[in-house]
Amino acid sequence: MVVVVDILRATSAIVTAFANGVSSMVAVKTPEEAIELGKHGYLLAGERNGEKLEGFMFGNSPISFADHTIAGKKIVITTTNGTQAIHKAADSEGLAIGAFLNLEAVAEWCNKASMDVLVLCAGWKDKFNLEDTLFAGALSERLLAGNNFITQCDSTYAALNLWKNAENDLYRFLDSSSHRHRLQHLQLEDDIRFCLQLNRYDIVPVQDRNGKLVQWEIPVVTGRTL
Amino acid sequence: MVVVVDILRATSAIVTAFANGVSSMVAVKTPEEAIELGKHGYLLAGERNGEKLEGFMFGNSPISFADHTIAGKKIVITTTNGTQAIHKAADSEGLAIGAFLNLEAVAEWCNKASMDVLVLCAGWKDKFNLEDTLFAGALSERLLAGNNFITQCDSTYAALNLWKNAENDLYRFLDSSSHRHRLQHLQLEDDIRFCLQLNRYDIVPVQDRNGKLVQWEIPVVTGRTL
Repeated sequence: MVVVVDILRATSAIVTAFANGVSSMVAVKTPEEAIELGKHGYLLAGERNGEKLEGFMFGNSPISFADHTIAGKKIVITTTNGTQAIHKAADSEGLAIGAFLNLEAVAEWCNKASMDVLVLCAGWKDKFNLEDTLFAGALSERLLAGNNFITQCDSTYAALNLWKNAENDLYRFLDSSSHRHRLQHLQLEDDIRFCLQLNRYDIVPVQDRNGKLVQWEIPVVTGRTL
Repeated sequence: MVVVVDILRATSAIVTAFANGVSSMVAVKTPEEAIELGKHGYLLAGERNGEKLEGFMFGNSPISFADHTIAGKKIVITTTNGTQAIHKAADSEGLAIGAFLNLEAVAEWCNKASMDVLVLCAGWKDKFNLEDTLFAGALSERLLAGNNFITQCDSTYAALNLWKNAENDLYRFLDSSSHRHRLQHLQLEDDIRFCLQLNRYDIVPVQDRNGKLVQWEIPVVTGRTL
């Protein structure tokens, strides 16, 4: 199964939208596909190169989704990197949306299945980026702390090591990162700080059989909700 | 220009061979190509999955090249990852062979040109590996310490950060790495320790106009050899 991550900002936005009650989301590759779905009751969210698409209700600022008026709505979203990564993983057996915002909940989702986990970092235009790698390290740390997972993968070791260096002050660690610079130019410091919060939300968006993103129903075990 | 690195063990072997006086080397993709060149006076070096090819004089153990009897000889080499990476970079404007063994000399080579430097980590079968990434971090640290280079690349930041964590005890840092495990099974601990030595050799193998690897002539400036 695959955890797709695009911390700045697509998967942080999707997690926030579900935490605020959207009923489903569809990730599409192009603005044209989004507009088509818009004709069928979907609200439009779209971004290219950090900026909201013209005529769309939302960009991919997670803060714009932190709004309970979206509860019960359906949203279609297209972004530079994140939705492309979701599409790459669409055929996998189990797909979840990961962000620092729902880190522990995603770890729980991974632990509930007994399958290999691939963390798919969206990066920036097919290049490595730091923030998604740090999430991979944070998630790996949680999974390896239990009995269900092992690794012998150098990219996991590297991500873990970077995470250990960064975890005490993610914001500062990312100070010099390339994407941070890109977003700084767009005056999105509030968004960045929002995206770097750990475990704000206890939900996991997952792909259903029809390819839509829906909220994972966290299993109830011995009377308590995990 | 490109610095190709395959610490364990192809580029460490090539650097060691030049430090011991080979006149030229050719990196080829297949054992068959190597055997063909063997008919024209080249000594054969070849490895697949960590083991020496049958009938070849050398594998890719750098220790086997630490031998002055190879001085003046020509060698053709084919390996699982390293020579494939050299081929990928063959068309670049300037190609050098990097290893911890010649780290400072490679930094000098980069500083002599005023061009972008790409560190091409061979990895293991197209996957990320730790030891090559650490070399990229070590080289980046040296280049960024001068006035000739800047970076805004997340992979450079990550490599630098990993290098800072590893530099005081490379061997221990790599203890859990995947390739180390592969080579441990092959009882190559001596090779690993050899490859992790810094600046044992003050030479840089570079690609000449005919696609052969030859030793870079370190420029003499104001009477001293850099």
